[in-house]
Amino acid sequence: MGILGKIALLTGGGDAPGLNGVIRAIVKTVKYRYGIEEVIGFRDGFAGLVRNNYVSLNLERVSGILHRGGTILGTSNRDNPFRFPVVVNEKVTYQDVSRQALENLRALGVEVLIAIGGDGSLSIGQEFHKLGLKVIGVPKTIDNDLWATDVTFGFDTAVTTATEALDKLHTTAESHHRIMILEVMGRYAGWIALHAGMAGGADVILIPEIPYDLRKVREKIEERRKHGKLFSIIVVAEGAVEQGGDMVVAKLVEGSTDPVRLGGVGQVVADRLGELTGLETRVTVLGHLQRGGSPSAYDRILATRFGVKAAELAAQGPWGQMVALRGSEITAVPLDEAVKQLKKVDPRGEMVAAARAVGISFGV
Amino acid sequence: MGILGKIALLTGGGDAPGLNGVIRAIVKTVKYRYGIEEVIGFRDGFAGLVRNNYVSLNLERVSGILHRGGTILGTSNRDNPFRFPVVVNEKVTYQDVSRQALENLRALGVEVLIAIGGDGSLSIGQEFHKLGLKVIGVPKTIDNDLWATDVTFGFDTAVTTATEALDKLHTTAESHHRIMILEVMGRYAGWIALHAGMAGGADVILIPEIPYDLRKVREKIEERRKHGKLFSIIVVAEGAVEQGGDMVVAKLVEGSTDPVRLGGVGQVVADRLGELTGLETRVTVLGHLQRGGSPSAYDRILATRFGVKAAELAAQGPWGQMVALRGSEITAVPLDEAVKQLKKVDPRGEMVAAARAVGISFGV
Amino acid sequence: MGILGKIALLTGGGDAPGLNGVIRAIVKTVKYRYGIEEVIGFRDGFAGLVRNNYVSLNLERVSGILHRGGTILGTSNRDNPFRFPVVVNEKVTYQDVSRQALENLRALGVEVLIAIGGDGSLSIGQEFHKLGLKVIGVPKTIDNDLWATDVTFGFDTAVTTATEALDKLHTTAESHHRIMILEVMGRYAGWIALHAGMAGGADVILIPEIPYDLRKVREKIEERRKHGKLFSIIVVAEGAVEQGGDMVVAKLVEGSTDPVRLGGVGQVVADRLGELTGLETRVTVLGHLQRGGSPSAYDRILATRFGVKAAELAAQGPWGQMVALRGSEITAVPLDEAVKQLKKVDPRGEMVAAARAVGISFGV
Amino acid sequence: MGILGKIALLTGGGDAPGLNGVIRAIVKTVKYRYGIEEVIGFRDGFAGLVRNNYVSLNLERVSGILHRGGTILGTSNRDNPFRFPVVVNEKVTYQDVSRQALENLRALGVEVLIAIGGDGSLSIGQEFHKLGLKVIGVPKTIDNDLWATDVTFGFDTAVTTATEALDKLHTTAESHHRIMILEVMGRYAGWIALHAGMAGGADVILIPEIPYDLRKVREKIEERRKHGKLFSIIVVAEGAVEQGGDMVVAKLVEGSTDPVRLGGVGQVVADRLGELTGLETRVTVLGHLQRGGSPSAYDRILATRFGVKAAELAAQGPWGQMVALRGSEITAVPLDEAVKQLKKVDPRGEMVAAARAVGISFGV
Repeated sequence: MGILGKIALLTGGGDAPGLNGVIRAIVKTVKYRYGIEEVIGFRDGFAGLVRNNYVSLNLERVSGILHRGGTILGTSNRDNPFRFPVVVNEKVTYQDVSRQALENLRALGVEVLIAIGGDGSLSIGQEFHKLGLKVIGVPKTIDNDLWATDVTFGFDTAVTTATEALDKLHTTAESHHRIMILEVMGRYAGWIALHAGMAGGADVILIPEIPYDLRKVREKIEERRKHGKLFSIIVVAEGAVEQGGDMVVAKLVEGSTDPVRLGGVGQVVADRLGELTGLETRVTVLGHLQRGGSPSAYDRILATRFGVKAAELAAQGPWGQMVALRGSEITAVPLDEAVKQLKKVDPRGEMVAAARAVGISFGV
Repeated sequence: MGILGKIALLTGGGDAPGLNGVIRAIVKTVKYRYGIEEVIGFRDGFAGLVRNNYVSLNLERVSGILHRGGTILGTSNRDNPFRFPVVVNEKVTYQDVSRQALENLRALGVEVLIAIGGDGSLSIGQEFHKLGLKVIGVPKTIDNDLWATDVTFGFDTAVTTATEALDKLHTTAESHHRIMILEVMGRYAGWIALHAGMAGGADVILIPEIPYDLRKVREKIEERRKHGKLFSIIVVAEGAVEQGGDMVVAKLVEGSTDPVRLGGVGQVVADRLGELTGLETRVTVLGHLQRGGSPSAYDRILATRFGVKAAELAAQGPWGQMVALRGSEITAVPLDEAVKQLKKVDPRGEMVAAARAVGISFGV
Repeated sequence: MGILGKIALLTGGGDAPGLNGVIRAIVKTVKYRYGIEEVIGFRDGFAGLVRNNYVSLNLERVSGILHRGGTILGTSNRDNPFRFPVVVNEKVTYQDVSRQALENLRALGVEVLIAIGGDGSLSIGQEFHKLGLKVIGVPKTIDNDLWATDVTFGFDTAVTTATEALDKLHTTAESHHRIMILEVMGRYAGWIALHAGMAGGADVILIPEIPYDLRKVREKIEERRKHGKLFSIIVVAEGAVEQGGDMVVAKLVEGSTDPVRLGGVGQVVADRLGELTGLETRVTVLGHLQRGGSPSAYDRILATRFGVKAAELAAQGPWGQMVALRGSEITAVPLDEAVKQLKKVDPRGEMVAAARAVGISFGV
Repeated sequence: MGILGKIALLTGGGDAPGLNGVIRAIVKTVKYRYGIEEVIGFRDGFAGLVRNNYVSLNLERVSGILHRGGTILGTSNRDNPFRFPVVVNEKVTYQDVSRQALENLRALGVEVLIAIGGDGSLSIGQEFHKLGLKVIGVPKTIDNDLWATDVTFGFDTAVTTATEALDKLHTTAESHHRIMILEVMGRYAGWIALHAGMAGGADVILIPEIPYDLRKVREKIEERRKHGKLFSIIVVAEGAVEQGGDMVVAKLVEGSTDPVRLGGVGQVVADRLGELTGLETRVTVLGHLQRGGSPSAYDRILATRFGVKAAELAAQGPWGQMVALRGSEITAVPLDEAVKQLKKVDPRGEMVAAARAVGISFGV
């Protein structure tokens, strides 16, 4: 019962609003509930674990960070200790440095590692768990595509940012009778596009789960024009694909020696719809704005609840678990189940049906 | 299978962000899915039903209203057709005018009535259902205290408004070393205070479900000052009560002939804490700001899903149901169960425990 | 030319969004332009000067504070060194401790003091200047009532907060056919009420400069109702007065031993208008929300320009000046002129005329 | 003195937040002050004037539009009546249809035309004025580059949107140690970039008025890294140019038959800085988000004041004037002076100097 060593934590992968809320809740909970004064915070994700780069987190350090976006610990995308990039003779090679990581933890007296991250970070956590380390996972994915939890923090903020963008595009679209296209995140799953599109009153939503046919999109636009609606709003997930097509974001232009950025799917849709309809189109790519900013109230609460639960599990076990939201309940699921598969939008589910019921087209 | 007559709807009780989203979704769904061109919208809640005051709602009428707060139909608080206020000889008497209401529906060819409202409106709906009318309920309570649904629209927006207020109060509290008190809605249930307090990093949360002891609040404030935190933030639900005390919002001052407004519970807490601690206190009462404004993305989506489901049930039955959110699912519950009891904050539940784990005091 | 000693600064009076922007700009400018590494920052206004309570400000310390409300130095309202509250035998007496303040500056090697504050703080600065200290003033008044500058930082943020509140009240006012009253800051000048009222589409604006007659307000409300506008929005500055009346914010209720808070002018207007019109009224008091929050872009820029100019004057003179905005230009005015009189709304000016032209009533 | 005929208005060019505020103020002022019940509103800019496509504007029509972005009248970019695009035999030719426009005005009984627009629209207005029409101009340019007015509505909202984007990018830039690039509007003048960059705490601002050298930008980034700041924020106006370079937004890639969009200047800067520094770069293009959304309080007030003044001039003369803001005053300038030249950022002015004083680099 209970641990004797220290607790460490790190944030891995792309940042998401709410990470600081998780960190704060963990540090506060282990202090107020278990009397543990200090938590080791590795900098820049697993890279900090490998390089023994850390800060000591206490109440003072986590004061006033709940409402701040990003992560006070920094994060990194390319730092898998089981396949760590090492430069040898000016060339990058990949080595397994997991022993170094474990040795760092041992030397610091760390007994439990809390890994806050997505798919990749949780898989690494699971591998360390198999090697005997006590690991707790906290799910983080702005795309909300982790199968084992209903929602993760950051998603609500991203949807809010995209919805505010749609509200803004509406007024200018109306004034100019244009087709406005908003490209949002979602490489493999269309959750942000679906939610923001429903909240922002979009006319068309294009997502990876439902390959689209631009002729159907044109039909929708023309039907609207028949009813006096001279503008249309389209939300496109960055991973949306055309029927029979590929997900093409960049390619080499033949005859050119340099790779040429063709623009994302939003631009492609804009250009082709412009040709198909003869109407003016404009595209906005939200990009990293969706990751930034102060987390929404919803995300701060969820982050806090996840952090408290993670601290509980870290201090008392069982370990090898990921915290999760199921319905209104905070619960835990085994790490190995958590990363098994992505959670995708169900083309036949209630959300898509509701979107269709209010007249939204998915381009099919 | 299916109805032959018209569908009517009304919005009753206090307004909440998202009402227009429900109205829009109902009108769009019955048109796109069932081919019904028109929905009767009674003005100002049940008062419109009694007085036959209505508008014809179609696609044109509900265009561009998703992001707008309030209700395009208006609402009313004092309009129970079973106990309707009628002025006779300059005195208000209450009469049962429900037959008049039913007769109005019959004359208009209405077969189904969708009542969007809280406790009170849904109970009235249930009474009409017992009289043989096909009734569908949509839950609306900004306080989120309806037992039969996990969440209602409007709540997230209210929590967001209160959280933004806390963010603002934080900076000024820090600069002046003051105790800032924010009074939020929640007469019988402390959901808004609990959520906003957690999201806004409050130090103390006072809610109806946990009668408070101001000496415990003082202890919390003094403990913070010992650690160099010279300010404190307190969120008070308007229905919060002192241990052994009553919910006193206004009373007659002895010796005065007029009733004197003493200020709400926020002011009372401010004045008494000022005396107890000798520190400066300031109180902000959010009031109707919490009901106002553009609904959050979350609330627009929930409102849309509720509206689609309500339209489905209205068109196809079963009737006598209220739409509800359970976990991530939109479902329906019998109207009579829906209004049986309030959903209160569980003082021993996970949310309160999580708040305590991050150091929040409930004044006990 | 140029100074040999150090520069010190302090923030006095109520806090305002933008103070941190001024502090940051001063520290950065003296470093980048004049090579001065450190600025002395007294804590809690002039109290810190008297008590020698200060921090050393450098680039590190002012990093990341531009967008934060409040002041990292703290402030205080009751700390005039020429009339400083001292507790002797449990009684507060007021003493002139200005020599102590000057001695503290001398001991620290401070040659110039930058006082960022309102009327009161600038007057104190002017008194020190007369005693031979090099003083530079930066105007700060959320009410925008300083005569010598067209605008001060904090005002735009306060107007924005009040305008957002009006936007929110609009939707709920419409839905319920109510009179909504918003009380905003402005004890002696009605600038916030006038600007927010114009921006928020208010129907009536009551300000100190134009004593109101509630019967005229009722006329406006009734005229609106005749044209089908069943709600009205009223903005009241906290210092608004009735024609022939006094500015009464709190008074003793006869027969009661304790002073009873009657509610501010907003509540008074609400109660009396309710009686006069028979309509439902609701009042919201914004209070300290108007001082809080992240400064608007406008205020951050103005604060930065003020800080740069103050640093220039501090390093190179002339001293005894207050920085100011005149038209689009940053300039300086002698401190003694700056505090001579308040800038009030001109009842016959272009702004009031423009408000009247769009149908706003001032209750006269 | 005074006019006998009707007043007409139109909105031309790109839309800007505040257009509806101008329209509302004009309609309200001519009604309340001059008793004129109706204003003719041409749809879609000068195109509506040519095609006699208009709506009758009265109090009812302009109710509730103050806070809405865009323009209720619609606008158009390609509709110069003196060079109007006409399709003849499937080819576009340009014809002078100004007589048709004047004839339409005469037939409607219009005596004065208020043209709300930028450079282009005001020049067209001036041409009509020369032909004997009474014309009043209202300046509209989101870029704030009209020489004859200190500020125009829409600019503050655009700066606010860009500043909020920078606030969001800050948190994610810090977490990932990246260079974040924000491309904002400003083809010929860098006002938005300069203001947003100062308000958003940017490290580098690139504007058309100061051709940049990317090696200087790299120096700034490296200097920051030396001081432990591992991220940098760069704002680029869309018209920023490299020293000795051209403004290249799109070009044909040799060997490819199709024109390939190379990405705007933001992408170009991102790609080249990535090469120069070896650091990760990310670019966000705000695009039409900057035109959209509810106007800020500042813009609503300015729009209202402009509208009132325009109505005054329309009703009473002198005509051939454009309303303008000079310092704090609303005034009027002759139309022919108004469009003479652009207002550019002065590389040696106080604003640029202030930006430099707080450490911002302009890449030179």
